[in-house]
Order: sequence, then C-alpha cells, then structure tokens
Amino acid sequence: MIETEISTLGEFGLIEQLTKDVQIKNSTTQMGVGDDCAVLDYSTDCNLRALVTTDVLLEGIHFDLTYTPLRHLGYKAAVVNFSDVYAMNGQPKQITVSLGISKRFTVEHINELYAGIRLACEQYGVDIVGGDTSASVTGLIISITCIGEGEEGKIVYRGGARDTDLVCVSGDLGAAYMGLQLLEREREAGAGEKDFQPDFSGREYILERQLKPEARRDVIAELKELGIQPTAMMDVSDGLSSELLHICKDSNVGCRIYEDRIPIDYQTAVMAEELNMNLVTAAMNGGEDYELLFTVPLTDHEKVQKMKSAKLIGRITKPELGAFMVTRDDAEIAIRAQGWNAFTSEEETE
Amino acid sequence: MIETEISTLGEFGLIEQLTKDVQIKNSTTQMGVGDDCAVLDYSTDCNLRALVTTDVLLEGIHFDLTYTPLRHLGYKAAVVNFSDVYAMNGQPKQITVSLGISKRFTVEHINELYAGIRLACEQYGVDIVGGDTSASVTGLIISITCIGEGEEGKIVYRGGARDTDLVCVSGDLGAAYMGLQLLEREREAGAGEKDFQPDFSGREYILERQLKPEARRDVIAELKELGIQPTAMMDVSDGLSSELLHICKDSNVGCRIYEDRIPIDYQTAVMAEELNMNLVTAAMNGGEDYELLFTVPLTDHEKVQKMKSAKLIGRITKPELGAFMVTRDDAEIAIRAQGWNAFTSEEETE
Repeated sequence: MIETEISTLGEFGLIEQLTKDVQIKNSTTQMGVGDDCAVLDYSTDCNLRALVTTDVLLEGIHFDLTYTPLRHLGYKAAVVNFSDVYAMNGQPKQITVSLGISKRFTVEHINELYAGIRLACEQYGVDIVGGDTSASVTGLIISITCIGEGEEGKIVYRGGARDTDLVCVSGDLGAAYMGLQLLEREREAGAGEKDFQPDFSGREYILERQLKPEARRDVIAELKELGIQPTAMMDVSDGLSSELLHICKDSNVGCRIYEDRIPIDYQTAVMAEELNMNLVTAAMNGGEDYELLFTVPLTDHEKVQKMKSAKLIGRITKPELGAFMVTRDDAEIAIRAQGWNAFTSEEETE
Repeated sequence: MIETEISTLGEFGLIEQLTKDVQIKNSTTQMGVGDDCAVLDYSTDCNLRALVTTDVLLEGIHFDLTYTPLRHLGYKAAVVNFSDVYAMNGQPKQITVSLGISKRFTVEHINELYAGIRLACEQYGVDIVGGDTSASVTGLIISITCIGEGEEGKIVYRGGARDTDLVCVSGDLGAAYMGLQLLEREREAGAGEKDFQPDFSGREYILERQLKPEARRDVIAELKELGIQPTAMMDVSDGLSSELLHICKDSNVGCRIYEDRIPIDYQTAVMAEELNMNLVTAAMNGGEDYELLFTVPLTDHEKVQKMKSAKLIGRITKPELGAFMVTRDDAEIAIRAQGWNAFTSEEETE
C-alpha cells in the first residue's frame, strides 16, 4: 500500500478527496458538502420531522485497531447512528462526519475508513452532507451526527409503553459481546507472536456482529407492512437490561421478561460455554447488539407473532411491580443495568 | 473546588446532570435531550430550511488548557458553530454536544465547560437537543453539531459572487491571532515559575477575541435592516486570505482587496509591533476572527457605506484577473492561503 502523509493534502485537500464524487440520494438534501452549512428542505411534506442523533467513537475506548479493519470501523460508526434513527421509527437521510487523525494515519488509511462510511451510506440511502477534519494529538476520533426523517404521529419515543403492552426484540442478543471476547482472547494469544493466525472458523457470525453490525431497517419495514405502530422503542446499544430500564423509567411502567424467550444464536452460546461465561448475562448486558427493543399494544398480539424479524419476550406491567426477568424455574430476578460504562472501563488510562 | 470523579455519576448520570434544567427556546424543537434522537418540526413555515454544520475541537490541537478557562472554551466551542450558520444568513437554533473526557477531568470541570456552552446557547437563543459523552484515553474532545434555520431565497452560499460586486468584512481582523501569540509568550515566560502573574492590562481586547469570541448575529440583523442581500458570504475562521480564495474559487471570480482598508484594532497593531510580526500578514492569515466576509452587488454601494458593523475592503473581478491585495504603494500581491493548518502544525506530536 502506498503511504501518503496527510500533510501533503492538507485539511481542505483531504476533505475534497474524500467527498468529491459523493452523489446526493435524498430529496431533502438541498445542498451537501462544500459551504459553511448543509441545507435541508422539508417543505414538500409537512408531516416530516427531522430526527437528530450523534455518536462519538474513540480509539482505545470504543475500538481497538489491532483487530478492527478501518473499513469495518467506518461502516460501524455510520450504522450505529442509523440505528438510533430507526429506533424512532424514522429513516436516516444525512450524516456529517468529523474526524480527528493522529500522525500515525496516512491518506490511504483515511480513505479506507471513509470507504466504510460511504458503503454504509450507500446501503442505507444516506447522504454525507458535511464534516470537519483535523489532526489529533493521539489516536483516531470519529464523531458522526445523523439526521433522519420521521412522520408526525408515527415517531416512536421511549415513554409510550403502557401496562399490558407486549415487549418484543429483533434478531438475537449477546453475539457482538461474545465476538469482542473472542477478539480480545485471540489478541492476547497472538501478542508478540509474529505471523500469528487466529482460528475464527465457525465463529464468523459473532465476529461480524462485533465488527460490522447492521441497523434494523428491515424491522421498521416489517412493522409498517403488518400495520404495527409500536408504543415505545429503543435500539439495544448498552444491553437489553439497560434499555428495558430506560423504557420502564420514561414510560413509568414495570416489565416481566422471560429468560427462555431471550433470543440467542448458537455461536453465541458455544462461545460463552467455551469461555465459561454466563450466557444470559451476556445476552442481557453485553450491548452493541443494535437490535430494536419495542412494545406494542396487547391487541397486536397476533400481528407480532407473524413477525419474522422480531419476537415476543415479555410484557409491560404496572410500575409498582418493578422490572424483573422470570427464569426457567419461575424465579424472578430484578433487572439491573450492568451495561458497558466507558467511565469505569478498565481500558481507560491516562 | 470539590472534586467529584466522573465514574461516580456514570455516563447517564453525567448527561442527566448537565441537561436537567435546559429550557426549550425554539418552536422547531419538538423534542430535545432524552431519547434516541431529537425531533425538529419545520412544518409551520414552508420557507424554512434546516442548516447543518459541525466542528470538532481537540485538546493540544485547537486549545491549550494551561491558559484557556473551561467556561470560555465551552462558550467558544458553541459560538464557532453559530458563526457558520450566520455565514449562510441563517439563525442557529439547536446543537448537539459530544464530549470525550479523560480521567484528568472531574464532574466540576465538565460542569464549567457546560456552563460556557449553556451561556452561549442562552445568549444566542439556541437549544441543546442531544449529545454523547464518553471517556477518552487522553485529553478533552469537544464535537458540536449546530442546526439552524434559513429562509429559502435568503440563504447565502459561497458561490454567488459576481464581477463588480463589492467585498465587505465585519469588525476587525488579526486580533484573535495576536491574542494567541500573547498567551503563548506568557505561558513560556511563566513556565516553571510558581505564582507567575502575567500582565495583560491594556490587552483585554485581543485576549477576549482569542478566548471568548462572539458570532456576528448583529451583522446579519444589520444586513436585514438595510435591505442588503449578500451575493456570497463566509465566516473568517481560517484567515481572510483563505476565505477570499474559497469565494473566488466557488464563484469563479477574482478579487482586489485594498491593504489600507483591512480593519485592524489598535491593540492588534501594538502587539504585532511588540512581537516584531508583520501586521498585515497577521490580519490576512491569522484566522479565528469569526467575522463575516461577504459580497454585495455594486448597486448596494450606498447601503453598505451606512453599515456600522462592516466595511468595504475591495471588489470582485473577472476570474482571469486573479486574487490580489493592492498595497498602500499600489503594488499587487497575490493572495495565498497561509491559514492555520492543523495537519502541519508544530504542536502535532505522537
């Protein structure tokens, strides 16, 4: 690979190269990259609302480049923002991308990162409309803001769950977390060994869930198709336990989740067994699943059972009943947020 | 000052504390902090367009905390984004704030930083609608995205300048740069000396321009009042030379700027003299002025002369005539972008 120092292009040259052949895909994008601001036009449909979300990913905290390909990292950085827009029952439409780049990175590195961001934007129909690029003292910094569109009356908040509603979750849980455990183990095993080749065969799914997650656009499409309007929705980024507690708090309700209904993939279970970790804990608290957790009225029971992309895992109760998981032997365990907290992570050093 | 470790609050606790009593000021802000996305409503006025801009500020690259108070830093981080919205002839309305925070910082530090961001938002009528907070490995990271509103037909781009247009700039130039030189000098003078007290008397203006700049909302108001619709506009963040070249390139025109018309404050001139630096170079290339550079049709000549907040500094020409500064002795010097480039900064190390 040719290595070009970023200083040979400068900030404007780099931005120009990264964004030069970007094609605008959305009618609301009136003006993209190239001025002091992007310009968005919502006048053609008065029911449209703009949805805004932002996420920052920091090297050494959110990702480790010893096992994360830059292209996957770019893809993931974009997709985690799209996931927040889907979680409002909206469609992501525009992003701005701010990068902080240390001297360790070349123009080719940043092209790789951007290729991933652009691939995600192509897959999900999103326009890159702006950004900022700067040197950093150490490490790579990625800050993405996503603007999406939702329809008035169809946007779903966290606070709308009601007693007797059904609780559903898409896909399966804990896989991204087990993928991370596997990557960490192989990194340690390979430390210092030149040409170390980790064996990942049969674990492709959990690795992909960690390194190149997708946002659940298909769940939003299936909900629409079946005529289901969720009462509350969130994406599962910090772990199912944490998100359930958010919905319970914001909706002032309680919940019962059934252990035997928590969706877990076979590879996730095998990995947990191999690492001697508690599988349900991983599924409840692992995080980074980017699945959709939502509640629907009890009257939608039949419709929900038809869903291919999501399944029923519990029900909403009165607030005084609290938030509990019902185990296979009918015990009730209080749900606690043990999700990943960057401020207490062991990786944090200075 | 009490020192509270951020881990005692955690990410959600910190965000909650920072945003708990935020009052929503704008009618387009339908939903602010507290869900997966903020929700913005543009349906009441079909002429409104959303303007989106983003800026990232990194410790060791864009700011030095040995002489920058955190409250001022927060204020500046917000204001530089507002400046980009005014540069489109718009009004800033919402921001999202993403922070990366190393272990060196306490809850009290972040409260100070946020107090500055909130003060700026109060002064300029802007709502804080979201954000993300994370630990960082080293240093403070501030990424702000601002959403503003512009009226269709009134939004001003960089590409609209035409031959014979007049070139104007607000306020004065080079002061922020000379303020930075003063702060750097005093830091070096005080290095290692305990209780070192730098003497800043008589230099308050250039310090304030560096540490707590304002965005030129008043210029936008005066343009409106006088019925002036600029043909092109930018804010001066990288230096007048750099911004002039952007307008010339995007509008496919040339320009002539008159040296004796470049607005420079007395304190800026004194400081340049004292440090034996070229004053015009500082004014043309210093950057961080956050003044507005704009062009108006020749027919607005009389109106522009009435402006209190801006003055005429030159004219737009045909593109083949190039971009030149006309000196006091009638020589023509080609305008070159020598603005600050983070990718070649000497401060950048790893």
